[in-house]
Amino acid sequence: MTTSTALLLADLAGVAVFAASGASAAVAKRLDLFGVVFVGFVAALGGGIVRDLVIAEVPPLAFADWRYAGTAAVTAAAIFWLHPQFARLRTTVLVLDAAGLSLFTVTGTVKALEAQVPPVGAGLIGMITGIGGGLVRDLLTGEIPVVLRREIYALAALAGAILVVLLEGLGHTGPIPLTAAAVLVFGVRLLALRRRWSAPVPPLRPPPTGAPGPPPQ
Amino acid sequence: MTTSTALLLADLAGVAVFAASGASAAVAKRLDLFGVVFVGFVAALGGGIVRDLVIAEVPPLAFADWRYAGTAAVTAAAIFWLHPQFARLRTTVLVLDAAGLSLFTVTGTVKALEAQVPPVGAGLIGMITGIGGGLVRDLLTGEIPVVLRREIYALAALAGAILVVLLEGLGHTGPIPLTAAAVLVFGVRLLALRRRWSAPVPPLRPPPTGAPGPPPQ
Amino acid sequence: MTTSTALLLADLAGVAVFAASGASAAVAKRLDLFGVVFVGFVAALGGGIVRDLVIAEVPPLAFADWRYAGTAAVTAAAIFWLHPQFARLRTTVLVLDAAGLSLFTVTGTVKALEAQVPPVGAGLIGMITGIGGGLVRDLLTGEIPVVLRREIYALAALAGAILVVLLEGLGHTGPIPLTAAAVLVFGVRLLALRRRWSAPVPPLRPPPTGAPGPPPQ
Repeated sequence: MTTSTALLLADLAGVAVFAASGASAAVAKRLDLFGVVFVGFVAALGGGIVRDLVIAEVPPLAFADWRYAGTAAVTAAAIFWLHPQFARLRTTVLVLDAAGLSLFTVTGTVKALEAQVPPVGAGLIGMITGIGGGLVRDLLTGEIPVVLRREIYALAALAGAILVVLLEGLGHTGPIPLTAAAVLVFGVRLLALRRRWSAPVPPLRPPPTGAPGPPPQ
Repeated sequence: MTTSTALLLADLAGVAVFAASGASAAVAKRLDLFGVVFVGFVAALGGGIVRDLVIAEVPPLAFADWRYAGTAAVTAAAIFWLHPQFARLRTTVLVLDAAGLSLFTVTGTVKALEAQVPPVGAGLIGMITGIGGGLVRDLLTGEIPVVLRREIYALAALAGAILVVLLEGLGHTGPIPLTAAAVLVFGVRLLALRRRWSAPVPPLRPPPTGAPGPPPQ
Repeated sequence: MTTSTALLLADLAGVAVFAASGASAAVAKRLDLFGVVFVGFVAALGGGIVRDLVIAEVPPLAFADWRYAGTAAVTAAAIFWLHPQFARLRTTVLVLDAAGLSLFTVTGTVKALEAQVPPVGAGLIGMITGIGGGLVRDLLTGEIPVVLRREIYALAALAGAILVVLLEGLGHTGPIPLTAAAVLVFGVRLLALRRRWSAPVPPLRPPPTGAPGPPPQ
């Protein structure tokens, strides 16, 4: 399997899991059929469209290659009809989201490097490709974006993007090192979820002695 | 009248009705003069800017041709000063919105086809051009986007975009078939509004026997 | 100092103040370290990315030149650790925001003119470059965008953008006229804040005689 075939498959797999993630979030909000397909579509293709715009690959793949839109629409519609019972839906969204994050981060970084974007910019584009779909999904379904609440989300993507940039700089391209980077993102994200890792919040000034501190907003 | 003149006029008419739609929504929220003009501007030109970016027509028409920004600003300001009394404003917004949806869907699809985007992608770009302005207007004025609540909205646009793609594929271009597609979108949307058509929502698991089901959110 | 060096420094200064503005808003919302850096990053670079996309300068400077992302990240992180006590934070955000608005409006307008965008479009792109970062910052932190509430915000940017377009048309380029335009935007914005200038709101129909009018929303 060539790198370009592997990239296509990884990209379509990312489209499918993000479409499922978006559709599940929309089902949880009780949106109707079109709303479910639309949120799935945007979650699956939004990050890639932004990536293609900033690397001047136009029209973006989401519009140039019907397999992208087709994968997103079929997956989201399948989730609408076949979704499991509601109890475990929130966990499903989080795991699918972690998988999409890892796949899109890696393919986004590789595409930016191939488009001659310098290393720092390519890593940022990879991270944004990874987190963009979930960000838009959360805005559309009225949730505070997960990326702002759980810092290990984007940090996991950033770690994977940096690993891809370093590996490419050292000449390690091809499916195996890229898979390793994807596994890194997925693993860090799942561990962070499971162990409830969190980043520091801004220091508060100490409350006056004897008085209770203000409640956090 | 040439196709290109007809497209320009249809595009400017779409700009005017979406500017009026955005401005009316902003008036209903009691925004001030600049807020009204700004929401009108974004509602009128947002969808087209996205369309031009994905088909690599830069700078987008909204910036390259002053008649677009001028039409949007004058229309929105006129709505601010001259808007009718408030009672029927919500209906006005919905009808103007349906007109803008139909005009932008058709011109967006045609422009994408002319930019050599494949049929599926061109239809999607047409639909996004049509629904983009209303989506942004709703986000800016704090409403849940109409496209997520009333599925026949984007579905009407999609039907019109598919009709344009089919007609172009059969060699039927020019104002008359395009007008037919625009009328289709407008008519379907108004019928859906009038008859309160709605799409299915996700199946719920049956409630425990004897207990009432949970109310939908 | 050449115009291009002056533009770079003004641009990086704008990045720093908008990153500080975004980070301060995120600190006020008690977001964690990554959330603070992310909001700072988007507030600092969002307007410029949109500007570069519409003038077809790809990849956008934010990704092509690591000094942009570096300035934003370091500034936002510094605000996280070193931010002053909370009492005066809101004022700090507003003043930094006014400075970013003035710098980005001027550099955005100049870049659009250099990319051969016609005058009206160049002024609009300059205004959008200036107001884009604050708009995204407010959406991400759950505030109604300041641009919709305080009309003198974008109006100040528009005045500065028009001044830049006029000065360039008259052949007055270089740091001194551009600095004058930046000072104009900053001054108008601060005056508007200090004196609570506001634009008219839509006329209401007079309440029935003897009955109190409805409270404004």
